[in-house]
Amino acid sequence: MNAISAPDALAALLGADLAAVDAVIHARLTSKAGLIPDLAAYLIDAGGKRVRPMITLAAAHALGGAGDPARKLAAAVEFIHTATLLHDDVVDESALRRGRTSAHRVWGRSASVLVGDFLFARAFNLMVEADDLAVLDVLARASSVIAEGEVLQLSSANDADTSLDHYMQIISAKTAALFAAAARVGAMSVNATPAMAQAFETYGHNVGLAFQLVDDALDYGGASAVMGKNAGDDFREGKITLPVILARETGDAEERAFWRRVMGGGVQEAGDFDRALSILRRRNAITRTLDFARVYVKAARDALADAPDTAWRTALIDLADFVVDRVH
Amino acid sequence: MNAISAPDALAALLGADLAAVDAVIHARLTSKAGLIPDLAAYLIDAGGKRVRPMITLAAAHALGGAGDPARKLAAAVEFIHTATLLHDDVVDESALRRGRTSAHRVWGRSASVLVGDFLFARAFNLMVEADDLAVLDVLARASSVIAEGEVLQLSSANDADTSLDHYMQIISAKTAALFAAAARVGAMSVNATPAMAQAFETYGHNVGLAFQLVDDALDYGGASAVMGKNAGDDFREGKITLPVILARETGDAEERAFWRRVMGGGVQEAGDFDRALSILRRRNAITRTLDFARVYVKAARDALADAPDTAWRTALIDLADFVVDRVH
Repeated sequence: MNAISAPDALAALLGADLAAVDAVIHARLTSKAGLIPDLAAYLIDAGGKRVRPMITLAAAHALGGAGDPARKLAAAVEFIHTATLLHDDVVDESALRRGRTSAHRVWGRSASVLVGDFLFARAFNLMVEADDLAVLDVLARASSVIAEGEVLQLSSANDADTSLDHYMQIISAKTAALFAAAARVGAMSVNATPAMAQAFETYGHNVGLAFQLVDDALDYGGASAVMGKNAGDDFREGKITLPVILARETGDAEERAFWRRVMGGGVQEAGDFDRALSILRRRNAITRTLDFARVYVKAARDALADAPDTAWRTALIDLADFVVDRVH
Repeated sequence: MNAISAPDALAALLGADLAAVDAVIHARLTSKAGLIPDLAAYLIDAGGKRVRPMITLAAAHALGGAGDPARKLAAAVEFIHTATLLHDDVVDESALRRGRTSAHRVWGRSASVLVGDFLFARAFNLMVEADDLAVLDVLARASSVIAEGEVLQLSSANDADTSLDHYMQIISAKTAALFAAAARVGAMSVNATPAMAQAFETYGHNVGLAFQLVDDALDYGGASAVMGKNAGDDFREGKITLPVILARETGDAEERAFWRRVMGGGVQEAGDFDRALSILRRRNAITRTLDFARVYVKAARDALADAPDTAWRTALIDLADFVVDRVH
């Protein structure tokens, strides 16, 4: 590990660009309805790393330089992401987000739903200003894919038999689609060739998949089994993720019965989470989840093989590596 | 009153166009996530009158003819409207919508939030296909204005002192903005002059305001005081609307204290709704609300004064008249 983390290094490299995006974000939160800037800023300023907008900006720089359209698109990407977080927290009834009480617990569910809608609409305002219908098409498609992925996940909740394929389909949609679009529109904003735009999309897609799988692992304590503040959420909500799928696939009948009981929507008992952790350990499920993530990180690196050899490409590759390295 | 209502007459006039829009709507509900078409079709097929998409189509016809872009935009308008209804019902915890159990009571709140997000995103997919950034700008702006209006209304809930101005601001945003955009994009789809596009926008804006005010009146039984199936919802939710504002402005101290108690978020007692009805009658508040609506209907008619004198213009004017006439 470097002394400075890859996202921090990228943020330093982006410098004024990232500050400009933050200025756009805050300017576009202005509203007659004071609840909008209050609630949105509460979440946006809570210390998110701006990974997605940084990918947009870095992709633009890697292929020419980030101009005003790239900054607007980066802000749009962050707005879409924030809208998704607000609605996700309502759906999951999460108590915490970025280490703070989640917005719907502070302002109420209705506020989170409606402010999420506002941010989503505002994202499209920014895209219109970026003035490129092809770019808008990419983010509009990603938006419907994300919503579709969220619905697929909701429909699979408490389905302890969710297959590996189905799960990868869900996270491709709900998580990877926005990373992919973020990278692609950055490239498109500087008129990248179709092949190069595709390469950056592939980079984003794979970083997104790795990011989600590492999150899944962290929800069970990651490799070190040191529990983060939200650890256990997926388990408590009966949300099937890769660690459980991998453990289930290689588990014995008793273990499969356990997963079906605890993830199948029934009552969870005291000690169930500890037992889940012990099964995941026995089946090497966290390690194997991180191995999956590493495959996607490698695919992300490979996707940029033909991109110009600049500090921006290096920073994007370091960012992909960081996604898995942050576990340790 | 005619034997056939204005929306039905307009639907008959639109014929194949409206069927084509319905086909687009149903085609775009297709998804790997079966919950999406199930839930969305439940609401869309429940007998909504498609007033907004009909306005888009009729505006296009009035100025030239509705082509493929107008149909896609009409479908997009209906998708935005449907997404709004789904989220509104979650916010208001409404039990009924279009005479049926509301979707969130059938499929759950989370499903309504996420399917609403999907429909909203899909609306933007359709707009991209209509291939005109200026048109997309109009609907994207309307979308953020609508969300802003919803948030403003949420922030004013249980504020018994909501002013007339503030209320008109809320309904301009949450209701009239989509009617205005629906009419404007119909006109723009056939390359209307800026003045004519503005005329149709003004028409839509005023129809939308009248529409909302009549809805407000109907929630207290309208002129005949015959209660519809959802009557009393606004009252029970403490949602201040024009009838209450008008009654309050001309009421005595005792009545103002009553409104403050029952609309201010406190406990409502048995008999409160009947007392509200009797105060509204005494203060002529329903009649005056409908008078307001008639002013906007007239403004809508006037806006189309310079539009070509066709059956389409007549149908749009009849539709505006119907908005108020439906009360009787």
